[in-house]
Amino acid sequence: MTKLIEYEEASAEVRAVYDDIRATRKTDYINNFWKALANHPPTLQRTWQTIKEVMTGPGELDPLVRELIYIAVSVTNGCDYCISSHTAAARAKGMNDAMFGELLAIVGTANMTNRLANGYKIPVDEQFQS
Amino acid sequence: MTKLIEYEEASAEVRAVYDDIRATRKTDYINNFWKALANHPPTLQRTWQTIKEVMTGPGELDPLVRELIYIAVSVTNGCDYCISSHTAAARAKGMNDAMFGELLAIVGTANMTNRLANGYKIPVDEQFQS
Amino acid sequence: MTKLIEYEEASAEVRAVYDDIRATRKTDYINNFWKALANHPPTLQRTWQTIKEVMTGPGELDPLVRELIYIAVSVTNGCDYCISSHTAAARAKGMNDAMFGELLAIVGTANMTNRLANGYKIPVDEQFQS
Amino acid sequence: MTKLIEYEEASAEVRAVYDDIRATRKTDYINNFWKALANHPPTLQRTWQTIKEVMTGPGELDPLVRELIYIAVSVTNGCDYCISSHTAAARAKGMNDAMFGELLAIVGTANMTNRLANGYKIPVDEQFQS
Amino acid sequence: MTKLIEYEEASAEVRAVYDDIRATRKTDYINNFWKALANHPPTLQRTWQTIKEVMTGPGELDPLVRELIYIAVSVTNGCDYCISSHTAAARAKGMNDAMFGELLAIVGTANMTNRLANGYKIPVDEQFQS
Amino acid sequence: MTKLIEYEEASAEVRAVYDDIRATRKTDYINNFWKALANHPPTLQRTWQTIKEVMTGPGELDPLVRELIYIAVSVTNGCDYCISSHTAAARAKGMNDAMFGELLAIVGTANMTNRLANGYKIPVDEQFQS
Repeated sequence: MTKLIEYEEASAEVRAVYDDIRATRKTDYINNFWKALANHPPTLQRTWQTIKEVMTGPGELDPLVRELIYIAVSVTNGCDYCISSHTAAARAKGMNDAMFGELLAIVGTANMTNRLANGYKIPVDEQFQS
Repeated sequence: MTKLIEYEEASAEVRAVYDDIRATRKTDYINNFWKALANHPPTLQRTWQTIKEVMTGPGELDPLVRELIYIAVSVTNGCDYCISSHTAAARAKGMNDAMFGELLAIVGTANMTNRLANGYKIPVDEQFQS
Repeated sequence: MTKLIEYEEASAEVRAVYDDIRATRKTDYINNFWKALANHPPTLQRTWQTIKEVMTGPGELDPLVRELIYIAVSVTNGCDYCISSHTAAARAKGMNDAMFGELLAIVGTANMTNRLANGYKIPVDEQFQS
Repeated sequence: MTKLIEYEEASAEVRAVYDDIRATRKTDYINNFWKALANHPPTLQRTWQTIKEVMTGPGELDPLVRELIYIAVSVTNGCDYCISSHTAAARAKGMNDAMFGELLAIVGTANMTNRLANGYKIPVDEQFQS
Repeated sequence: MTKLIEYEEASAEVRAVYDDIRATRKTDYINNFWKALANHPPTLQRTWQTIKEVMTGPGELDPLVRELIYIAVSVTNGCDYCISSHTAAARAKGMNDAMFGELLAIVGTANMTNRLANGYKIPVDEQFQS
Repeated sequence: MTKLIEYEEASAEVRAVYDDIRATRKTDYINNFWKALANHPPTLQRTWQTIKEVMTGPGELDPLVRELIYIAVSVTNGCDYCISSHTAAARAKGMNDAMFGELLAIVGTANMTNRLANGYKIPVDEQFQS
């Protein structure tokens, strides 16, 4: 298992990212994902910068919709950590049980139809190509 | 390539599904996906019933959000047909270029972080387990 | 695109594999997969040896069932070449339209339930663990 | 973790599905998959209906072959729950150790050749396209 | 298909990225990937910044090894565009036919053993856990 | 869980593979992967033969690079056992923390760009096709 780097033992550059995570998320809690990425500071910095912009930056999709999309990918890939952390994040942003159920129903259905489309080798309709 | 079954040559049970697709979607156009599935009528019926309920039935997620989730899965799986058809559907429901850009940015980011979580074998935080 | 190595221009070691493919399959036709693998002879030899044993060697699963399993994997992965070649092989071994329809229905369903199991993070039942 | 809904606390519509599972499978045991899906009753109903038709309905593929196909998908996707539950189901339907060994050998081989086909970008043979 | 944004019609912020790609790669050619991403400038900027650092920045892995790793992922995912562009990049950095053959042999083998490990549900050895 | 076959209880053909693993790797330790595969001796033999040739046979890629490629695939597929065992193997061959960090950064990035290429349906540049 990867060593989790705590704030106290972290280098200055890692602490700076941790501080920004805390300020952006308005919580003292740093979750294990970041503590693991801190083993490679450039990855920690880049990944946090990307997540921060993509998930909390300005845009047309509201924060809850962004989390739903994130979960859809993580469920499809079977990433246990990502499903757990982003389900928690989505609930904190307002996802209730019914919404989670609908989300998984769509994710499951899309994974099913993806394979039907592959298996039947269906040509893309001309009107979907423009 | 799978034979695409046209309305004129379809059996009564297949025509019934085509009719319901037309009535539900308020269009005469039947896209290739359904014409291919018509080669196995039980799959056509079950899949249409599922898609109809999941994508257009009552629920808390609005129709555009459902399409975004659908695209997220299809992009992750690399299903060309499904990306094409559901991108068209999402645009018809109001997705603009900026929203599509944000969607793909999240999908790409989640696919990246999913692998960072896998590779570092990060244990799920206790507070994400409840 | 990878160069396809024809019999006439092939080295002796590649020809030996081509000859064995022809003898085993009782056909003169060498499909593109082997002509591409011939660019790296050790991979050609190893892969043909594996396929020959796994798909045509003695065993409890009959040849058609083996092809159905092969297609199930290829459809799940979205490998166009493998879906095409093994669908042809399965048809040659007796797969009819109804069987292909049932196969894809199961593959689609399993891909759906795999994601529901992931998304709900369902614990494995004790009785399935023995 | 998802709450598992027991029969005693379930709504009437959930109980109806549980009753049908018991009657169809001739066992009192309801496995965790269904107890988790019961958190979203429409998904429970739809998924059970699909599984019931696809895995136990009339068709040309025998029940054991259907389970082998199901396992092939679940192993390819790395879905732990689905591998566990359907391996148990396949064993109950007659799968022995040799058959399981052959199954995994084919699944492993197909996953390998899928990537060789992808990596070499092999064009589909004309005769596989009809 | 996504519109490809040419330099002449690009905004100032997109041109700045294109200029940096040209300077970094010492070529005037901008490949389609970037022209497509230019439809969403923040994604273009972030992605280029990430690729630039990860693929050409300082580090212990030499540039060719980085390309081989990139191809391994792209082949596993079946991403046609990425296989094509990074195979070209790897060849430009010194990959010969034998190395490409060895690379695909490893990628194929790992995809096979990944499924054998999944299917047999093999517990991680204690000594691999530290 | 699969039974792990120990040397003492193994058949002669399984022992022969175990002996070759020990001789090739210059260690008495047989890891769980092989003990699980021993349940199906032909798969054990074939898989060991393939791994031996691909990972330790003559070739242009050095042993550590081969392990990095192997990990890249395993991380992309989310195969916990394979990530664990090959990360240990790579460390034994000289991979340090910085190299592992760079490896995961590339794997994460490639998984991101694979989806951007899929989502935008980017046509392969003519110059990448030769």
